[in-house]
This record gives sequence, structure tokens and C-alpha cells, in this order.
Amino acid sequence: MASKPSIPKGTRDFSPSEVAKRQYIIQIIKSNFEKFGFQPIETPSFENSDTLMGKYGEEGDRLIFKILNSGDYLAKANASHLENKDSTKLTSSISEKALRYDLTVPFARYVVQHQNEIEFPFKRYQIQPVWRADRPQKGRFREFFQCDADVVGSKSLWQEVELVQLYDAVFTDLGLVGATIKINNRKILSGIAEVIGASDKLIDFTVALDKLDKIGEEGVKKEMIEKGINEGAIEKVQPLFNFTGTITEKIEKLSQLLAASSEGMKGVEELRFICENVLKLGLNSAVLDLDVTLARGLNYYTGAIFEVAPPKTVAMGSIGGGGRYDDLTGIFGLKNMSGVGISFGLDRIYLVVEELSLFPETVTATSKALFINYGDKEAFYAMQAIQKLRALGVKVELYPENAKVGKQFQHADKRGIPYAVIIGEDEMKTNSYAIKNLVTGEQVVIDFENLKSTLL
Amino acid sequence: MASKPSIPKGTRDFSPSEVAKRQYIIQIIKSNFEKFGFQPIETPSFENSDTLMGKYGEEGDRLIFKILNSGDYLAKANASHLENKDSTKLTSSISEKALRYDLTVPFARYVVQHQNEIEFPFKRYQIQPVWRADRPQKGRFREFFQCDADVVGSKSLWQEVELVQLYDAVFTDLGLVGATIKINNRKILSGIAEVIGASDKLIDFTVALDKLDKIGEEGVKKEMIEKGINEGAIEKVQPLFNFTGTITEKIEKLSQLLAASSEGMKGVEELRFICENVLKLGLNSAVLDLDVTLARGLNYYTGAIFEVAPPKTVAMGSIGGGGRYDDLTGIFGLKNMSGVGISFGLDRIYLVVEELSLFPETVTATSKALFINYGDKEAFYAMQAIQKLRALGVKVELYPENAKVGKQFQHADKRGIPYAVIIGEDEMKTNSYAIKNLVTGEQVVIDFENLKSTLL
Repeated sequence: MASKPSIPKGTRDFSPSEVAKRQYIIQIIKSNFEKFGFQPIETPSFENSDTLMGKYGEEGDRLIFKILNSGDYLAKANASHLENKDSTKLTSSISEKALRYDLTVPFARYVVQHQNEIEFPFKRYQIQPVWRADRPQKGRFREFFQCDADVVGSKSLWQEVELVQLYDAVFTDLGLVGATIKINNRKILSGIAEVIGASDKLIDFTVALDKLDKIGEEGVKKEMIEKGINEGAIEKVQPLFNFTGTITEKIEKLSQLLAASSEGMKGVEELRFICENVLKLGLNSAVLDLDVTLARGLNYYTGAIFEVAPPKTVAMGSIGGGGRYDDLTGIFGLKNMSGVGISFGLDRIYLVVEELSLFPETVTATSKALFINYGDKEAFYAMQAIQKLRALGVKVELYPENAKVGKQFQHADKRGIPYAVIIGEDEMKTNSYAIKNLVTGEQVVIDFENLKSTLL
Repeated sequence: MASKPSIPKGTRDFSPSEVAKRQYIIQIIKSNFEKFGFQPIETPSFENSDTLMGKYGEEGDRLIFKILNSGDYLAKANASHLENKDSTKLTSSISEKALRYDLTVPFARYVVQHQNEIEFPFKRYQIQPVWRADRPQKGRFREFFQCDADVVGSKSLWQEVELVQLYDAVFTDLGLVGATIKINNRKILSGIAEVIGASDKLIDFTVALDKLDKIGEEGVKKEMIEKGINEGAIEKVQPLFNFTGTITEKIEKLSQLLAASSEGMKGVEELRFICENVLKLGLNSAVLDLDVTLARGLNYYTGAIFEVAPPKTVAMGSIGGGGRYDDLTGIFGLKNMSGVGISFGLDRIYLVVEELSLFPETVTATSKALFINYGDKEAFYAMQAIQKLRALGVKVELYPENAKVGKQFQHADKRGIPYAVIIGEDEMKTNSYAIKNLVTGEQVVIDFENLKSTLL
């Protein structure tokens, strides 16, 4: 191979400092998942194709990475599809497995497959990569991690309350203040559709309404009319054009607006329960907001809908989302399993934490000291100390070669190692260690006890 | 989908307790990697096919999982291979990416691609899954984790010394006493080949010699002769048939045996340096042994060869291995980069730790307490305590529904949760909590401070 090697587009290598920062975020998410009673599971990277195909719509099917069958895969290939060069139809006869596209469908599959071993309600979390053959662009990758927490087997709205708290707990640990947890409810949207008398226009309606800040009330109404929503209908939901105030006030407005829709009123009651309890219990770092334009996952969410926006000072899309889906496992034949869950967007949270300089300095900490190598006798003396220090949990290293001293110090410098330990004949004779602080330049000769306490 | 869903053969779902146990082992490996100065990197799950193909021999190429190109892949398919239904030849025109087969080739690719950003010697570790289209069998999977630590850019034998210590440190933290770290050296094997005058018979020779315990000296010699090694040659390496004693004694024997082979003598000196320093510095849990039949990775290792056997009480193959390869990155055009590394076999170490009952009981610890749900008012009171406890890092849960109390206690029991907290009107009035130890059955009513100290 003559040319410099590369990696497939949309994928990434992570350097040591990037891995350390990602692990820092993952560790905070993980420990909060566990504090909230979620238990980890892991599922295989690839699933049988029929587990995944048909679950994400036609576009989703296209974006699933398929794995070519091993061996003489053409032997079993469908002859007519092959002859017609019909790629789409041929696939199922030459590929039986596919890389997972998200963690939700594999979770539903897991629940159904292991239903007899699972104690319900089952609170599971899963932090694993997923793959999508999306066109790569800034911030969108073909391999990325999802961090999901879901509860299956209970319709209790306390779950929604806790999921909002879970977001808040993670952001608090990250030092991320001012994220907005937006909440809406599928039933509120159904209620609005009922009131405007056009459920097929619901998306057009919410998309237009979402532009209120940008194009003003008249602009929004103009767009709605262009989309075929009639003026009388728009009139009926007039309060949504001045939808401000506290959450409690907003819920009151919705309650009046949707009075005629029993579905809508159910949504109002659910929202009221969740929001009231969240607010009474209090949030530490995030802000809860009711956003009726939030129509995320309209096709599968049946109750609460969540989406998290980063602090307003950071220009970026949502850093998390989730909701309630009444029939999580129905696709695999297990009925009446309500699920509710949230997801953390690791890549975007990383960018937000980076932009706001919230990574602790220690996160990328490498070894605490480099022992300079003056030859095998000195190296052996160094290794005796290194061995004891490591047993105490201290990260220390011996420079492997008896190279020029300048080169060894340069190595410590480039690696960001804060101390160098220098051992010459004098130190060996007196059972001591010369330790140099590479930041201040200060150098002292100390015994092992002091070396230990300096590096611990 | 009517039938119960399943996963592809050779893959696994991991339940919460399995994930916890795997994470426990991974965490110990990871923290020791870092104590020894190794830094983490991560590479993409799939690589460009030309990065992987041709690196693992013909058999390896066959076992690499190929990813089908997205979209109309047949449009670019090689027409004549398609017509001839030649699966093997067609692959490269319909698949450009493949799942990584190990972590070594992606590491070599990483080093070459990022050579200008890397400070050498580069000590990296990598803990990620790999995929092989192997025939699944007991203990062999199509998706499994590798845990690798390698140093690239230094020929210093201190690295080998440290890698032996690294194995020992991990086993010590796992409480795994009595593993045998077997060491050999490619140059010793070359020396033996030279002495027996048949380098093409080297594998036959070591395989036969390895059976000494089972079939005795005469049996081994018989097999060697059957394999075409002549009696005179066997005579010359007679000391290998009585190759016992301390490591130092074994090295002495080799030194006499291989005196005529300069390559062999180089191997002896390398072994001597590594073993002497390891022994002088001392191991805590593992035993070092010199095994001249160890011929692992004969095709690519050029210096030290390692293989780790579990304690003799456990019947299982090797739980780790590694060695020195003088030209790690040459395949990608970067010459003269010596590498040395070791790998931990996570799945087998898991089985050994399980068999010897070395997992701490706390490893699968779920929530510390389940708060019984008597209705929304009580649940709110419970949530106030839960929120404070979680902020202190305590794992606690509210049973989400106001279900029958018996069912809630049963849930705690099945989940292995040790305490139930019961809140009724009395507790709410007196600002207290009834806490029941589900193991002893003891129940007391306490205030929040005592609740906290009980659960912390």
C-alpha cells in the first residue's frame, strides 16, 4: 500500500485526549443512570436483518448498513434480481445481517426475547455505537454512540418526572447550566389537530408556529394559510400565538383551548402532573419549558415528548430527546408494553462542554512522572520505585531507552507529564530521588516517602 | 414478525449482571493500562477494505465481515465476476468497507495516519469489539472484545519487563493467583531451527516437543522422526527433552545448546534480560515460566513471545498473549517501527474469574432501596428523599405504580434490592421513614439523617 492510509468517510479515530473526554461524559451519564435505578444491557452490533428492516421507514431501511453473507454468497442470490441488477431487491438474498441503526429496536427485541427472565418494570440503559449510512456532514457521523435510558412495563407518569430529573442530574455533574428541557405531549398535538380540524396538517401547523419568533404572527398565519389550513381554524387556536408565561399559565391556556377535545385534555392532565411535580421537586441546572411546537417522533411517541436544547449561548441543535411510546414491543409480538425513555447526544454534548470549557483539567491527565533512563542499572533502581508507586495507584513511567537526556525531557514535555524523576549514582548511593517539577523548573532530592507524597 | 425474535449466531446479548461483571474486569484492565502509562485510542468499527484485506492471510480474509455498499451497489459491480457468479472476486466491487478483525492492524493504520501528531515511543491501549466470521463454538464468538496494550517506537527490553508486570498487576487486582506467564523468543526458535538444520520443520518440532508430558520422550522423538526430522538433529537438542529447573537454569541450558547460533544467542540474551529483571523485581500473583515450545504468532513476532495460562485448577486455554514485532507499521509504509504488546482475553478471563468465584458480591449491586409507592402524595414525599439521596450518590428507586404492596416487595426481592422504604400517613406526619431490611426482615422507623447513613 503506497498511499497514506485513511478511514471511511463519516467515521472517526479518537486520540487519547478525545477518548478521555468522551469517557468523562459517558461516566457521568452512566453513574446517573445507575443512581436512578437503570441497569445496563448490551446487544450485538449486528442483528438479523428482519429484526431491523421495516422499523424505521423506507428512508431508514436505506440507511441501514448491511453485512454481506460470508462464503459463496452468490450461490443463494435471487437469480432474477441478480439478472435485473436490482440492488434493493437482491440485498435480502445476499445479506442476512445488518449493523444496528439505533438502540431502541434492539432493546424492544431484547425485551421480547428475554421476557421470561426480566423483572418488570424494567429500567435499562445502554451506551453503545450505532451506524447509519447517512451522508456525512458537520456533526453527523456514520458511527456514533447513543446513550439511552428507558423504562418498559409501566405507564406511571413518575417515570417522566424522573427522566427530567435525570437530564438535570447529568447536566449538574457536567457543570452545564442553562440547558432547556422542552416538554410536549402527543395528545396535546392530537387535541390541536382536532381543534383546527385537520390532523393531516399538524406538522405544517407546528413547523409554521415554531417560526413565531422569526417571522411574527402575521408571517406564521400566512404560511399556515398557504399550507391549506383555513382561517377559521387558525382563529380557534389564537392563544397559541401568544403562548407565553409560566408553565402553569401555559397549561391553563391549553386547558381552555383544548376543552372540547378529550384526547387533548388527557394530554393537559399528563403535562400538568409531570410539570407540577418536576417544579415542586426543583431542578438544579436545567430549565423546564412547555413547547407546543415540539413534534419530535410524531409517528411513534404517544404521550410525553422531550427535547433538550443547549444553553442559549451555544448555537447548536438538540443535545437529547425522548418520549413515551405505548407499544414499544408490539413489533415483535409482545403487546401492551408501554415504554418511556430519553437519549443523550454524546457528540453534541461533547461539543457543548468543550465550547463552554467545562472539561476539568485533570480529565486528560497522563502519567504523573517520567523516570529518566540513564542506563540499565539506574533503570532497575527506577523500576523498583515505579513498581511500588503503581501498586499505590500512581501513574508513572520509565523512559524505555537510555536516550539523550534532552530528548527524554522533551518527551515528558510533549506528553504533558508534570514531573521528571532523575536517578544517578548519587541518588542510588543515598537511596534518594531527584524530582524536577517540569512546570516550575524546581528540583529537589528526596527520599521515597516524600516522592510518594509528591506524586500521590 | 410472528416468531420470537433472535440474534445472529455467534453473537450475544449481555444481561445487567453480565455487563456489570464484564465492566468490572474491563475497569481493572483499563486502570492498570493507565497506571503503566498507556493511553487510550479508539478506531472506527469498520475500516476501508484495503486496510484490512491481505493482512491476516487467506483464511483471515475469508473471516472478515464485509459491508455491502449502500445504494445501487450493483451498478458498479464487476460485470464478468457477476456473470460468473464468482463471489470472492465480486466482493471488492460491491463492498468497500469491512468490520475490523483485530485491534493490531487498525492500530498500525492509526500510527501511520497520525504519525505527525504522535509523540514516540507511543504507549496505547485499546478496548473495543472485533468481529470474525468464524464458525461459532463454545467460547468462540463472532463478536468479542479485545483489550490490547502496545508500545510502538522503542526496542527497549524494559517494555517486555513491564508487560509481564502489567499482566501480574491485573491478575493481582482480580485476585487471580497462579496464572502462568509463559515466555519464549522467536530468536530462540530460530536458533533451534538452525541447530536441527530444518527451519521448515520448526512448527512440527515444537508441536511434538509440547507433548512431552503426555507421550514421553520416546513418543515425542518418534513423532519428530515421522515428521521428517532426522535423528542426528534430535540428538543435538537432547537437553530440550529434560528442560526443567529454574528459569535461570533453563536459560543456561539454552545458552549452551544454542552457542553456535548467533541468532539463538541473541534470543538467549534477550530472555535473560527480561526474566532476570522480572524475577528481581518480583511478581505478586502470577508465575513466570520459560517455555521453548511456545511458538505463537510465529509469522509476525520477531522477539519475545508471551502466552498466559490460567491457574492449573481451571481447565481452559490461554487467557492472554502477545509479543514483539519489529516491523509493525511497515504494511502501511512506515518502516523501522518496532512494536511490542499484549492482549487480555476478556471472555476467558470472565469464565476463570467466575469459576473461581472471584467476582466481588458488590459487582452486580443494583439499587440500595426501593421506595414503596402508596399513591401520589406518598410518592411525592418519597421523591423528595430520593432526590436528596441520589445527589449524595446513593442508588435508590421509587416503585413507579401504586400497585399491591406484595407485588412491590416481590419486585425488590427479584431485583435483589436489600432495603424497602415504606412511607404512609404516619411517616409523612412525623417526617420519618420506615425502612425494612429485606434480608433480615427487621423494620425500623427513622429520620432522614439515619436513612441516609443506613443507605450510604
